[in-house]
Amino acid sequence: MEKKIITISREFGSGGRSVGRKVAEKLGIPFYDKELVDQVALESGFAPKYVEENGEHSPGKSMFSYAFASQGVPGIMSGLSTADFLWNIQCNVIMQLAEKGPCVIVGRNADYILKDRSDCLHAFIHADKDFRADRIVRLYGESEKSPESRLNEKDKRRRVNYQHYTGRTWGESRNYDICLSTSRLGVEACADLIVALVKANKE
Amino acid sequence: MEKKIITISREFGSGGRSVGRKVAEKLGIPFYDKELVDQVALESGFAPKYVEENGEHSPGKSMFSYAFASQGVPGIMSGLSTADFLWNIQCNVIMQLAEKGPCVIVGRNADYILKDRSDCLHAFIHADKDFRADRIVRLYGESEKSPESRLNEKDKRRRVNYQHYTGRTWGESRNYDICLSTSRLGVEACADLIVALVKANKE
Repeated sequence: MEKKIITISREFGSGGRSVGRKVAEKLGIPFYDKELVDQVALESGFAPKYVEENGEHSPGKSMFSYAFASQGVPGIMSGLSTADFLWNIQCNVIMQLAEKGPCVIVGRNADYILKDRSDCLHAFIHADKDFRADRIVRLYGESEKSPESRLNEKDKRRRVNYQHYTGRTWGESRNYDICLSTSRLGVEACADLIVALVKANKE
Repeated sequence: MEKKIITISREFGSGGRSVGRKVAEKLGIPFYDKELVDQVALESGFAPKYVEENGEHSPGKSMFSYAFASQGVPGIMSGLSTADFLWNIQCNVIMQLAEKGPCVIVGRNADYILKDRSDCLHAFIHADKDFRADRIVRLYGESEKSPESRLNEKDKRRRVNYQHYTGRTWGESRNYDICLSTSRLGVEACADLIVALVKANKE
């Protein structure tokens, strides 16, 4: 079965987004990352920044975001929590994008949301902590927290969110068709492998 | 860094051994599976059958195997349990094989034993339960137990053994450079991907 939709799940700082962008470029198909966030923002009424921060993370330490975010947002009126409301919109947007045709979708538990489609290739991109720590400082700059604690916090929030909405364990190989380490293989090689796999399934 | 040693860890019934054999054939390098068992048997004094059954599994229900297996085996005299004695010999044999040159090593926690070598490519092969159940009946025949319970038992014993000796979680993508699903991608395609990766690292 031809694999038209490629979902890329990734550890923070692993370069999974770059892998996804390269795969989309090499295959000449749309790459949904920022566009997906914008669409969810449009349909939910949340600010894009809020969707980006909370669409694949369990809530951080501050619970104020819940209260503020819910001001005037219609989903809250139906009794759903902010997180559940966001999850529902995200599911719809991702399923609609997949219906539109071949594409690469990064993050947001798309592997689970599209698990029943046989035309998807689900990839997980991970990397050693040192590689990721170095990468986030280069890409996003320093902060008052150590790179190590920034990674731990993001990892934890993604893991909890994934477990909560999918019942699966984050990073478990069985959830994916292919898992690759960018720190061991390189970003370019990971993209090439995924492209080779998609092309092999076309033949 | 060139990847000369390829370790293949695999779920029971996934076809990981076939992937390993194909990779070795395509690269023209030795394939260690039965040979590894024979070498461990030779160095430990255990029967090959015993090594094969217990080298990567936690003990099954019967504890008699412990008592019988230890008759006259020298390692037991040093106070090690049968399992720990077998583990030590296996570590030595695997490290010696890796020293000999390029090869493919299947199973026996070789990914962990060789984790400090940078010239290794560590692969994990898994598959859906239906695919595995069908495969074990075709390869090993029917038994009084259902294929499902045979899979569950083997999975559990490998998971416990791996966790005990490595402190890692069995099947977690972070332990490997590449994880592949044979039920989704096919045995041949998985072998081709690993070969492509090894060749790309040579260039």
